[in-house]
Amino acid sequence: MRVFVPYTDRDPKSRLAPALSESERREFSRAMLRDVLRAVREAGGAPELLVPDAPDSTLFEGSNAPDAVSVTVDERPLTPAVNDALDRLRERGESEVAVVMADLALATPTALRRLFGVGGDVAVAPGLGGGTNALVVRDPRFSVDYHGASDRDHRQIAARVGLSVETVDSMRLAVDIDEPSDLAEVLLHGRGEAREWLCDAGFVVDADGDGRVGVRRS
Amino acid sequence: MRVFVPYTDRDPKSRLAPALSESERREFSRAMLRDVLRAVREAGGAPELLVPDAPDSTLFEGSNAPDAVSVTVDERPLTPAVNDALDRLRERGESEVAVVMADLALATPTALRRLFGVGGDVAVAPGLGGGTNALVVRDPRFSVDYHGASDRDHRQIAARVGLSVETVDSMRLAVDIDEPSDLAEVLLHGRGEAREWLCDAGFVVDADGDGRVGVRRS
Repeated sequence: MRVFVPYTDRDPKSRLAPALSESERREFSRAMLRDVLRAVREAGGAPELLVPDAPDSTLFEGSNAPDAVSVTVDERPLTPAVNDALDRLRERGESEVAVVMADLALATPTALRRLFGVGGDVAVAPGLGGGTNALVVRDPRFSVDYHGASDRDHRQIAARVGLSVETVDSMRLAVDIDEPSDLAEVLLHGRGEAREWLCDAGFVVDADGDGRVGVRRS
Repeated sequence: MRVFVPYTDRDPKSRLAPALSESERREFSRAMLRDVLRAVREAGGAPELLVPDAPDSTLFEGSNAPDAVSVTVDERPLTPAVNDALDRLRERGESEVAVVMADLALATPTALRRLFGVGGDVAVAPGLGGGTNALVVRDPRFSVDYHGASDRDHRQIAARVGLSVETVDSMRLAVDIDEPSDLAEVLLHGRGEAREWLCDAGFVVDADGDGRVGVRRS
């Protein structure tokens, strides 16, 4: 199955700015992307990078860099770029297509295989805060809309044209890395290059407070 | 399987104070508790409330109130109270015991069945921020320690005595309701009395901002 992974190098992960400089955010984002591409491939998917600018070769330099990745360049925002990519694949006769976000630093091949195998005209992995972190589309009447509470919106889009929606209940696909507190999840549960990057940058789990643990930088 | 559900009415869910008054936090916590007790029972478990004070009868009044729940009163903190409860059950010859937190407002019978069925000397559902939201214990050499990054600590405790640990990858068991931003998850994914309570209290999803959606009160 073709699996689109949208990614941008333009001011990546801006909400991590309190914790990381812009160049660090870029390095960390690229490490997460490579982890996701690797997990997609190990889950049996054919990853296809969807980017607004042609990537430079260093994007694929890293311990978890995949052997080969197709690249589609589309400078439009996420929603029209993904919908157009889905349309083009359907015109080529592909019966199912997936979209997996590039910041799912906890994603494992096992979790992605569950998503790819769950069935439904549309299969969804909900994200924290109402997002859609990964989905599989098996009917051309479906289109994406990533603005706002997209999980809810995607269910409504499917319902309007009578499509079935299956859900994968996965923490590893629900946690996208957007905010400084999310870095703790990468340190605690990550297994790839993104976790390595955080460790090398001096981040450690801070379990001193009450409630959920945080991170601090040494 | 006997399933302990620790709960306290003493200043419940204090980190929700920016969003809810103390009496509201108590009402909402009780609604979540009843949802959890109901889900445990529908998953085939026998819920046993573990509380520091004998509960008043209103605790079990609500649309999702279970028919009957055993109650153990132990005024000690969570860790010794749970460990003692586990010990007593083992003395009575029970071969497996579970502990499920009372604030898992997204928990479904399906998610709990996955946990109960996953095998392992210890089965764990990790929570956001390093917690242990639910676990099954099948070996008396294991004990709990809920302070700090308990998911990591529980794996170390198991490893020290050579026990196997299986993990359930579930968003519905990973999200505990601790902070105001977590209320959005209840509105988006909850199915029980806790979601009803939030709706009746005027909370709605606020999808106007960038990134994860929040809640606002009308």
